[in-house]
Amino acid sequence: MLNEVLKEHDAQFYIQHSGDNNFYYATKFRIPNSAFYFVGSDGTDLLVVPDMEGDRAKRESVVGEVSTLSDLGYFDRLKELKNTKKALALTLVEFLKTRGAKKVLVPPNFPAFLIVEFLKHFEVEVIENPFSEMRAVKSEEEIEKIKDTSFAIIRAFEHALKLLKRVRDCDMLRNEIELFLFSDGYLAQDTIVSSGKLSADPHYIGHGKIEEHVVIDIFPKSRRHHYYSDFTRTVILEDCPEIEEMLDAVIEAQKKAISIIREGVTAKEVHHTVCDVLEEMGYQTIRRKYREGFIHSTGHGVGLDVHEKPKIFENDDVLKAGMVFTVEPGLYYRKWGGVRVEDVVVVRKNGCEVLTEYPKKIDLRSKR
Amino acid sequence: MLNEVLKEHDAQFYIQHSGDNNFYYATKFRIPNSAFYFVGSDGTDLLVVPDMEGDRAKRESVVGEVSTLSDLGYFDRLKELKNTKKALALTLVEFLKTRGAKKVLVPPNFPAFLIVEFLKHFEVEVIENPFSEMRAVKSEEEIEKIKDTSFAIIRAFEHALKLLKRVRDCDMLRNEIELFLFSDGYLAQDTIVSSGKLSADPHYIGHGKIEEHVVIDIFPKSRRHHYYSDFTRTVILEDCPEIEEMLDAVIEAQKKAISIIREGVTAKEVHHTVCDVLEEMGYQTIRRKYREGFIHSTGHGVGLDVHEKPKIFENDDVLKAGMVFTVEPGLYYRKWGGVRVEDVVVVRKNGCEVLTEYPKKIDLRSKR
Repeated sequence: MLNEVLKEHDAQFYIQHSGDNNFYYATKFRIPNSAFYFVGSDGTDLLVVPDMEGDRAKRESVVGEVSTLSDLGYFDRLKELKNTKKALALTLVEFLKTRGAKKVLVPPNFPAFLIVEFLKHFEVEVIENPFSEMRAVKSEEEIEKIKDTSFAIIRAFEHALKLLKRVRDCDMLRNEIELFLFSDGYLAQDTIVSSGKLSADPHYIGHGKIEEHVVIDIFPKSRRHHYYSDFTRTVILEDCPEIEEMLDAVIEAQKKAISIIREGVTAKEVHHTVCDVLEEMGYQTIRRKYREGFIHSTGHGVGLDVHEKPKIFENDDVLKAGMVFTVEPGLYYRKWGGVRVEDVVVVRKNGCEVLTEYPKKIDLRSKR
Repeated sequence: MLNEVLKEHDAQFYIQHSGDNNFYYATKFRIPNSAFYFVGSDGTDLLVVPDMEGDRAKRESVVGEVSTLSDLGYFDRLKELKNTKKALALTLVEFLKTRGAKKVLVPPNFPAFLIVEFLKHFEVEVIENPFSEMRAVKSEEEIEKIKDTSFAIIRAFEHALKLLKRVRDCDMLRNEIELFLFSDGYLAQDTIVSSGKLSADPHYIGHGKIEEHVVIDIFPKSRRHHYYSDFTRTVILEDCPEIEEMLDAVIEAQKKAISIIREGVTAKEVHHTVCDVLEEMGYQTIRRKYREGFIHSTGHGVGLDVHEKPKIFENDDVLKAGMVFTVEPGLYYRKWGGVRVEDVVVVRKNGCEVLTEYPKKIDLRSKR
């Protein structure tokens, strides 16, 4: 795919810097320092790393060729320039020149200090990150990892349901969920445990007493394989007909949306299915610019990042088999609070598979 | 300080984007999305955030003025351009123009997609991040937070020492340490538990059996206040005169280095003190370009990041009261393995204070 991108933009190189999951995805190499991955139309497939990381890069990365900064003459330039950033920029420039670069492509978040130096020597074009695009479609191996994290979430959620009989404080329950997941090998942060009227803000992580109903939104990553999953259930604790109706509506909207997901459908169609169902039931949606009701998008891709491509909103993206994303309709009214139900699905040729299979409506009223 | 920077570079604006701790340090506002902090020579002190974050930004940030993307006309531009990045870049350009910008300053990691648009309208200069510099000197409040995390490390280390009587596997012990810290409110990742000959690689996190001796390097951050600390001890488990001599040498070098730290001393002087002591004892050091012996720098600043300014190496930086950094001499020989002792200190006017006070030499031989 990168060769097509280079051809399309009439460029000789694409450069991916370290610091985000696109670098990891492209190289399968984790590094806390600065490193660069070069893909060239001449067949260049080169990872440039600090000297200390050279051996590990050769061992762990999937890139064809590894060079260290020393190999590229960085330290001679540093001695002369006495400025690490300038020396690094000129080292990369010299390397690109020796390989005949006239135009180079970089991703949107490529660092400014390199760009300003590159611009003195080449044409530079900022393009959408090609790896972000590639990451949207998962391999079966990646799907297994997301499934693994999904099962861990279900275990943690069942633990939370048991605790709900005695723990009635948002921060305490969040802490118990995150501790349970950590012991199990997963890292969850900012887990939403949001209760009562305050849950009307979908981004509020929740504090104070748990009463009426509680929205639990858990999105950990594996500490071993680093893949995320994402799951929300709304638990009914006390009688409130409005909340129960909202929850039934959201479950219905999700069910309908999931039923249409398959290869070839657009993101927009999924999002509009959710809006249609909710509007038919008399609720307001973001489609009509309301600030209460269903006020966010239907979903987002999940993988090495908890938010990645594809977006499931008003965009025209066509779903492909292997895409993994959330379907998470919610309804939010300041008068009653918020409800949401969220599952992760993988798109298949003729339908979709839910990776976080679990009952949608959780009612703890009778069990108290 | 930023006003001086603007004057010095004859610029009207400095722009800090979200995504790293410099943004948080400057604004005291945490945000997963894109946000921008503008400081102007005309007194501009403005935070630009997505619409949904406007209220929270007003509540939580320390910035004088908050605008949302809507306020700045982003959505009108988006409707016209149908490209979120282009619309964002032009929104910021228009804002800067209305406030009379002719030259703007940005940090080294400022995103490429904005820079290329800015360059069409203004002079742009990439400067060292002024907040990185400011962050090197801590307030007493920040020092208390680093001290809090330091105490948590000591608790976890004492727990590890108890476990060492029965747990003799690197991964198991790492997991126990990280779990203990997580329950205590701290997040540790990639904790080094490295044993025997393999500990000769200072960056190897350690796997397999614990035998001979073990290097335990713990560097968590608080899940509440987000400040790190960093601490290493080498535990002797079996007789090995070479390792014991290396450990004694490293302890002596650290003691001497700590004894000279005070306001006005240079980073270089601290580093050379460590090298002097180790070389006098017959060990090789990085100063003579050896690849065994003391092969890394003496230390690094600790705060919101586990590695920040100041660097304690061959640099001329002058230590200021309030700077917090590690002093971590080590010795690494493939034949014997590695040893290291690491503490965090805060520079004071007439000396320094050790925040991770704990016995330096841990010998578990007699206790087995």
